Amino acid sequence: MKNQEIRLASRPTGLPTADNFQFVDIEQPQVQDGEVLLRMLYLSVDPYLRGRMREGKSYVAPFEVGKAIQSAGVGEVVESRSPNLKPGDLVTGMMRWRQYEVAKAKDLIKVIPGVPPSATLGVLGVTGLTAYFGLLDICHPKEGETVLVSGAAGAVGMTACQIAKLKGCRVVGIAGSDQKTAYLRDELGVDATINYKTTDDIFAALRAACPNGIDIYFDNVGGEVSDAALRLINTGARISLCGQISIYNSTTPDIGLKPQSLLLINRAMMKGFIITDYGARFAEGVTQLAQWFAAGKLKHAESIIEGFENTPRAFIGLFSGDNLGKQIVKVG
Amino acid sequence: MKNQEIRLASRPTGLPTADNFQFVDIEQPQVQDGEVLLRMLYLSVDPYLRGRMREGKSYVAPFEVGKAIQSAGVGEVVESRSPNLKPGDLVTGMMRWRQYEVAKAKDLIKVIPGVPPSATLGVLGVTGLTAYFGLLDICHPKEGETVLVSGAAGAVGMTACQIAKLKGCRVVGIAGSDQKTAYLRDELGVDATINYKTTDDIFAALRAACPNGIDIYFDNVGGEVSDAALRLINTGARISLCGQISIYNSTTPDIGLKPQSLLLINRAMMKGFIITDYGARFAEGVTQLAQWFAAGKLKHAESIIEGFENTPRAFIGLFSGDNLGKQIVKVG
Repeated sequence: MKNQEIRLASRPTGLPTADNFQFVDIEQPQVQDGEVLLRMLYLSVDPYLRGRMREGKSYVAPFEVGKAIQSAGVGEVVESRSPNLKPGDLVTGMMRWRQYEVAKAKDLIKVIPGVPPSATLGVLGVTGLTAYFGLLDICHPKEGETVLVSGAAGAVGMTACQIAKLKGCRVVGIAGSDQKTAYLRDELGVDATINYKTTDDIFAALRAACPNGIDIYFDNVGGEVSDAALRLINTGARISLCGQISIYNSTTPDIGLKPQSLLLINRAMMKGFIITDYGARFAEGVTQLAQWFAAGKLKHAESIIEGFENTPRAFIGLFSGDNLGKQIVKVG
Repeated sequence: MKNQEIRLASRPTGLPTADNFQFVDIEQPQVQDGEVLLRMLYLSVDPYLRGRMREGKSYVAPFEVGKAIQSAGVGEVVESRSPNLKPGDLVTGMMRWRQYEVAKAKDLIKVIPGVPPSATLGVLGVTGLTAYFGLLDICHPKEGETVLVSGAAGAVGMTACQIAKLKGCRVVGIAGSDQKTAYLRDELGVDATINYKTTDDIFAALRAACPNGIDIYFDNVGGEVSDAALRLINTGARISLCGQISIYNSTTPDIGLKPQSLLLINRAMMKGFIITDYGARFAEGVTQLAQWFAAGKLKHAESIIEGFENTPRAFIGLFSGDNLGKQIVKVG
C-alpha cells in the first residue's frame, strides 16, 4: 500500500510556492490498540496554515521544516483496533497531509450521518464555528444593523453573511470576482456586494453600499479594504478580526491607517479571536449550524480540487482567491 | 460686576495658539427661577477639548466658532433662586469659560463636604471616573497581571495606575519627564517607569520594563509609544483607548503600524470609550473613588495655574506635558 506525506520543505517567503512542499514516500505505521488506519478522503486547506509556516508566535505552534503539514481532514476507517470505530466509518479530526494515516480513535469525531462528509470541514466544522462565534459572540448583531463582511465569498465569510441575515441584519459583502458577488446576492441573499478588484475607489463604494454606516465589520482580509471600512464605522461598532489574508504573505510590517482614533471617536471595539478558544461551546455551535443547515437556512459552497498531489496548489490558490466557499482537496 | 467669557475665535490647525481664543466682556444674565449665579472658582482643562475644537465627528458636538468654550468647573453660589442651593454653596458641573455664570440648579452637583473642591474636577470627578471605568470595565485587571499606562503622570493616567495597583497588578508607567517618573514610583508605588522623551529605543525599554509581556494597556497617547507597546501584548490582552493625545493636533492621517495582526495573533481586544457612556454608573464609581481617597489609598496631584486669563495657556500646555496630574485653572 503506497503512502505519501507532504512535508514543509522550507519556510515560505511571501507567497508560498511548490518548492516549499515536499512529497515523501513513507512506511505505514502499525495500528496499535485504540488506533485506527484511515484512508484519507478529504483535506481542508485554510489561510491560517500560512501563519503556522512562519517561525515565531502565531495562532498555534509553527510547523517544523521537514515534518508533515497538518490540517482538518475526513478519513474512512479501513482497519480498527478500537471498539468505538469499525471499517467503513467516516471520521474527522486533525490529520497529517497523508494518503493513509494512523490515528487514535479518541482524537476523531464521527461524521454526522446524512451530512455531506466534506461539510464537516466547512459549514458544519471549524469554518462554520469560526463564523458563528466570531460574529455572534464578539459582535452581538442586532436586527437592522449593517454588517460588513470582507472575504465574503470565502468559507467563513459566506457563513458569517448568512448568520447575519438570519439575525435580521443588512449584510454587505466584499469579494474578488463578479461570479462571487453574484453568488452572494443571488444564492445567499446578501443585500449589497462590492468586487474590490474592479472598484477604483473602495471607500466610495463602501459608503454607497452602507448608507447608514457600518455597525459590525467581520474582517477576513485586512489591508486597504479594512482601512476604508473603518472610516465608515458607527458609534458603538464592533469589529471581529477573523483573518488578515491580504497580509499573510507580506514580508514587511503592516503600515497603514491606524484605527485607534476611529475606535476612540466611535467608542468602537476590535477583537481578534481563534476558534479553539471556544472549544467548550463547540457542541452549542454545531447544533445550531446543523439545525439551520437541515432547514435549508444555511447554504454552503465548496471548491474541490481532486488529487492528493494537488494539495499544495489548492493551498496556494487561497491567496489569489481561486476558491468560492470552502477549499477542499478530494484525496482519493 | 465685570464678567468675561472665552470664546473659540477660530478652529486650531495643529497645536492650538492664543489666537484661537478670544476674551469678550459680557453682560450678566438675570437669574431666573430655578437658577443660581456662580462665581467661578476652578475650571478644568482637558485634552479631549481639542477634539471639540475640530469640525466634524468626535466624542461630542464640536464647539462653535464665536461661542464660549465649555468644560467642567467648580463655582460658588453668590445668588440663588433655587430652594436647593444657597449662597456659599460650592457646586460642580459643565461650565462655560466665564468668570460668572448663571446655571440651572438641577444641572449642578454639590461638592462633597470635606473634599478639596478642585478634586471634584479630577480624581473624584470625570477624570477619576474615566480611569475607573476605562480600566475596570474594559480591561478587567486580575491580580499579577502587567498593566501598562501611557500618559501615566496625567490626571487619568495616575488614577489608572493606582487603581491597577489596588487590584494587585504590576504597573508600568510611561511619562515625559524624570520628575514625573519619580513621582509615579515614589509617591504612587508604580513598579517601573519609562521617560519616553529620554529613551532612544522605546521598544527595548518597554521589553525590559515588562519582562512578562503586557496584559493590559491603558492608552492615553497613541503614536509610536503605542506601536511599540502593542508588539509586547500577551495572549488575551485588553487595550483601553482612553485618549490619543500625541495625535490630537496632527493634520495628517495617522499612518503607522496597524495593530490588527497583533490583535489577531494574540486574540486581543481594543476598545475606545467615552466616560459619558457610563453615566448610569457614575454613583458607583464616585462612591468607590471617594472611599479609596478618604482611606488614603488613592492620591491625586494637581497642577494649578492662577488667573482666568491663563485658561487658554493652561489648555495649550497639556500638549507639551506641562502638567503633573490634573491641570486646573484657579479662576478667582
